[in-house]
Amino acid sequence: MVAGVKALTCDVFGTVVDWRGGIVRAGNSLRQGALSSIDWERLADAWRQRYQPAMARVTRGELPWLPFDALQRLMLDEALAEQGATELTESEKAELTDVWAQLDPWPDSVSGLTRLRRQLIVCTLSNGSVRQLVGLSKRAAIPWDLILSVEMFRTYKPDPRVYRGAVEFLQCPPEEVMMVAAHVYDLRAARDHGFRTAFVARPLEWGPHGEAERPEPGEFDVLATDLEDLANQLQA
Amino acid sequence: MVAGVKALTCDVFGTVVDWRGGIVRAGNSLRQGALSSIDWERLADAWRQRYQPAMARVTRGELPWLPFDALQRLMLDEALAEQGATELTESEKAELTDVWAQLDPWPDSVSGLTRLRRQLIVCTLSNGSVRQLVGLSKRAAIPWDLILSVEMFRTYKPDPRVYRGAVEFLQCPPEEVMMVAAHVYDLRAARDHGFRTAFVARPLEWGPHGEAERPEPGEFDVLATDLEDLANQLQA
Repeated sequence: MVAGVKALTCDVFGTVVDWRGGIVRAGNSLRQGALSSIDWERLADAWRQRYQPAMARVTRGELPWLPFDALQRLMLDEALAEQGATELTESEKAELTDVWAQLDPWPDSVSGLTRLRRQLIVCTLSNGSVRQLVGLSKRAAIPWDLILSVEMFRTYKPDPRVYRGAVEFLQCPPEEVMMVAAHVYDLRAARDHGFRTAFVARPLEWGPHGEAERPEPGEFDVLATDLEDLANQLQA
Repeated sequence: MVAGVKALTCDVFGTVVDWRGGIVRAGNSLRQGALSSIDWERLADAWRQRYQPAMARVTRGELPWLPFDALQRLMLDEALAEQGATELTESEKAELTDVWAQLDPWPDSVSGLTRLRRQLIVCTLSNGSVRQLVGLSKRAAIPWDLILSVEMFRTYKPDPRVYRGAVEFLQCPPEEVMMVAAHVYDLRAARDHGFRTAFVARPLEWGPHGEAERPEPGEFDVLATDLEDLANQLQA
């Protein structure tokens, strides 16, 4: 079913790195200052929940192009205001936004991608900015062959231009490219462009009490429990 | 003089990999077929000499955007015709063009870039297509933090959009970025955009009898004999 795949395009936030754990840890370390009123788990979720609608506004042309860092800085203000948390300084907000460029990988990510990379071209295809993706990959030694960011197409997933653009850069027919993600919206869009698809379960993406995404039976080519399991299934 | 540099943007063909040696070797191995009349050294030089004018036509808008692979395929026909070499098949021409995605690094390239990467963001900024750059980097294990290709800007060096685009992706002021190249035209354009500059001498780029490029005294921040020497000078 996955014969002929030559390249993997991987979602990053949630699929390869743990955004929620990183934000909560960074927030809790700020809290040692004057910020004891903020529930960082709630804030992380509120912040992350805003990002799909904000990206959709960019994709529809209602907002001008802004890379993910700038968009997240705007959404942080909204998420903080929602919690009545107005006591953060500009530099604390910048520091918190920069956590997205310093997130830790899930425990299986580096080892799984390292195996996959032995026989496939392994690249990102992420809503993150180039700067964020380079920053977190370098910090955690995530071994990409290529970093592709939506910033190169000045739009966000699931805009068709992202998937078409990736295939154009790779110079592969889409059926030789497999999208790897923990999010069904992303995989469905990739599948609509002819990509192969691998769903990677990340039950802790939204924390221990969060709800995990569940694909419909049979809608994707591969269902993997993590990136090591994907390497097993692709015989890498 | 180079304090504050955070990222290196590296030219690839000639600076990091040896295009001429690769083409001559590939041509000579084809010659074992019916192609004994072709002087591959002359052909490599003729082919390479066409690429600056062809790219300039794209930059000026006289040719539509074509990635480097496609442009090189067109130029190969011209270079072959010039030598009266009409006996290559389409598949031999495709194979020869693909050599640009399989070139070997100079002996100091991987070790020098590995050292530089320990303390700097090290990326390509090349006229090569994304596919070529991924192909040759993966094959030779060249350790980039990021692959930037002119293909992302749909133009060629020294178009200002290339240098401005790189700085936008890196989210660095240009004085924190150092262009690394064996070619003065590229370094002069980068310098005009506020980049720091490192000239890397590649006396063998055009072969043992070729003429090496020589910068004017003092025009670039660093003159390096190779990429190991650049790592020494930047204390990496």
